[in-house]
Amino acid sequence: MSERAASVAVVAVGDELLEGDHADTNSSAIARAVLEVGRSANRFLALRDDEELLAREIAELARSHGVVIVTGGLGPTLDDVTRHAVARAAGVPLVVSEEAREHVTGWFARAGRPMAASNERQALVPRGADVIANPRGTAPGFRISLGESTLFALPGPPREMSGMLEDAVLPWLAEHPVDEWARCARSFFLFDLAESVFADRVGAWMERSANPLIAVTAKAGVLSVRLVSRGSSLEEAESKLAERAAEFRARFAAHVFSEEFPDLAHALGRLLLDREITISLAESCTGGMIAAALTRVSGISAVFRESFVTYSNESKIERLGVPAELVRGHGAVSTEVAAAMASGAARASGARLTLAVTGIAGPTGGTPEKPVGTLCYATVLDGVIETHERRFTPAGRDAVREWATSLGLGLLWSRVRPRSV
Amino acid sequence: MSERAASVAVVAVGDELLEGDHADTNSSAIARAVLEVGRSANRFLALRDDEELLAREIAELARSHGVVIVTGGLGPTLDDVTRHAVARAAGVPLVVSEEAREHVTGWFARAGRPMAASNERQALVPRGADVIANPRGTAPGFRISLGESTLFALPGPPREMSGMLEDAVLPWLAEHPVDEWARCARSFFLFDLAESVFADRVGAWMERSANPLIAVTAKAGVLSVRLVSRGSSLEEAESKLAERAAEFRARFAAHVFSEEFPDLAHALGRLLLDREITISLAESCTGGMIAAALTRVSGISAVFRESFVTYSNESKIERLGVPAELVRGHGAVSTEVAAAMASGAARASGARLTLAVTGIAGPTGGTPEKPVGTLCYATVLDGVIETHERRFTPAGRDAVREWATSLGLGLLWSRVRPRSV
Repeated sequence: MSERAASVAVVAVGDELLEGDHADTNSSAIARAVLEVGRSANRFLALRDDEELLAREIAELARSHGVVIVTGGLGPTLDDVTRHAVARAAGVPLVVSEEAREHVTGWFARAGRPMAASNERQALVPRGADVIANPRGTAPGFRISLGESTLFALPGPPREMSGMLEDAVLPWLAEHPVDEWARCARSFFLFDLAESVFADRVGAWMERSANPLIAVTAKAGVLSVRLVSRGSSLEEAESKLAERAAEFRARFAAHVFSEEFPDLAHALGRLLLDREITISLAESCTGGMIAAALTRVSGISAVFRESFVTYSNESKIERLGVPAELVRGHGAVSTEVAAAMASGAARASGARLTLAVTGIAGPTGGTPEKPVGTLCYATVLDGVIETHERRFTPAGRDAVREWATSLGLGLLWSRVRPRSV
Repeated sequence: MSERAASVAVVAVGDELLEGDHADTNSSAIARAVLEVGRSANRFLALRDDEELLAREIAELARSHGVVIVTGGLGPTLDDVTRHAVARAAGVPLVVSEEAREHVTGWFARAGRPMAASNERQALVPRGADVIANPRGTAPGFRISLGESTLFALPGPPREMSGMLEDAVLPWLAEHPVDEWARCARSFFLFDLAESVFADRVGAWMERSANPLIAVTAKAGVLSVRLVSRGSSLEEAESKLAERAAEFRARFAAHVFSEEFPDLAHALGRLLLDREITISLAESCTGGMIAAALTRVSGISAVFRESFVTYSNESKIERLGVPAELVRGHGAVSTEVAAAMASGAARASGARLTLAVTGIAGPTGGTPEKPVGTLCYATVLDGVIETHERRFTPAGRDAVREWATSLGLGLLWSRVRPRSV
């Protein structure tokens, strides 16, 4: 296996990047993705919209990297120079691609908008390039050989870029392995399983030599698990992956909340809508963050009733009917008060499912018994209460609140998740 | 003025960047900042922790850029190779800096933590370098000449990096102008002033030839205004800036919510705490986002009572006493219902200040009269109601909700902001 062949250079193009208008998130997204198909990003470069400089740098990068991925500079205006620069680096002229032209005209037709003359420019590609479709925008991308290197040009908007990366770049890379292996990958997102317990339960699947290989990262109660499969052909890799994924699903069904993205609010929202379970919340330390996360889900108003953001003790007592003596006796941060809050929210709102959270976000307010990072939860589903106390090692007020939000969403998901049969 | 001298290259160092663990936000922050001192970022480069490669690239960049700023790789472990690579590029040995050593040992002493032997490594700098203090972390930075170029090495954590950029790098660049001008800058953040009205009111101050120059950007009801002053010396630039800043403050006092950062929640929270004004909220389309933003402010529990996240019509009626016929007659998204919600929240909570928001976040639910992006607000301060209706051109559900949150915080700030005498 050649180190050069496995090495990926990522180039982001655009004056707006070099003027700091926004950070380049495309390069890191590409870096994560190519790892899974056996490649390794070794250089990110960001340059201004300068055709000559860009052509020189691209030619140079192609000599030392098996793959060069360029993002940005594919728009319709004169300062969009990527296609010209790549043509120059490849030593070929730009030609009108009928496929690209149809893509651009079709996009405007579907959007019901008139196409400007300048968009004609987006039908140009370096001669010999293969067009990459962009279902999410006007700019098609392309793939072209530069000596022993392969260059991909993708548009800059992250949503368009990542779609084309998944749809076209990663499959091509998986089919053109740098070693004897083709690769493909699949993700699972799990809640309510400690990383160590997970490791015990997957056992030999996690060995470095295993195929598929398992990579796992943990964040705020969510495990992100990636299975990466190798085979002598893509078919073989995919078949091994499908088999292991089925085993994985069977073993961890109770914990997997998504195979798409690590968004607990979205998974919970879909479940509540599918099962028509009404929900209300009672939030103290999260100050409305759980409601804010859940109401991001489009259509959630069909099941989401309300949230009582009861920050003060008085509001817990008056709004949710928490007995004042419970607050005095156990403190506002206690599973007893959380249970009374959740029950009160259920009673007041009539929702089938409620969650209450109360905790110490810090930086002040901690005690030896209840340090900053102490979180008390209660959930009520059809009258049945469950309580949980968790302690989060504090890393600042924002971090405690984010963790508390994630955990709250996860506990709700746990109450309504599909049970294995 | 030499183009090379004005040109800045930014290098981010670290395997974690090239593996996509997180996006590099330092480079764009540096790019924005150097613009104000008359420099221009022309190249971002991200590389792995490879001393030899890094040394070669740094030497190369120093030949074509007046300033090279390197972030990351200044930690205590063996894979932190920035100081070694810079020494190699400069052709000088690493030496122990007493200043750096005191910085590192002092940091651990202040933090009350034992210092590991590996942290001794952080006392090393290339011979001839000037140490840059890092009040927020263990790793000191340094500045060194590389031929005609000046290199700054700063740690990777953004909070540490940006502090040292402000405290040491920008002042040094302002004192070493590439043209006849020294430069310095100051920011103002304004609410409730249209960009066009602002432009009319500043008039000639906004001309391209003005000194100080004014740059303005608008986002979700907030204007970010940057004054950049030039002078034949830094003293002269600072004196001009102080004069214009005082005029600016006098003219726009009623709109300036911060001279530090564009964070309305923080500005509002400080005002409420200073003036001891209690607050409660009633949120519909923002689903708790305004409460979540305001409760980020540490200590806010002294004045923040509660938020009623009344997503359903029933909860608006039951929780806030909004008359059912008002909802039927005007629709839930109306200033009439917003006013009833805000009054209801004031009545129920006893807070002096309340805000209610109801709107159509989309993607569905819009009508010709009330399209997606319609937002109705009411604020009550000591019994006095004000209502506002705003229409936001929709750019997706998340964008409408973010704008609605920002506007809500701003309207609250407007009710309690200090009035000019």
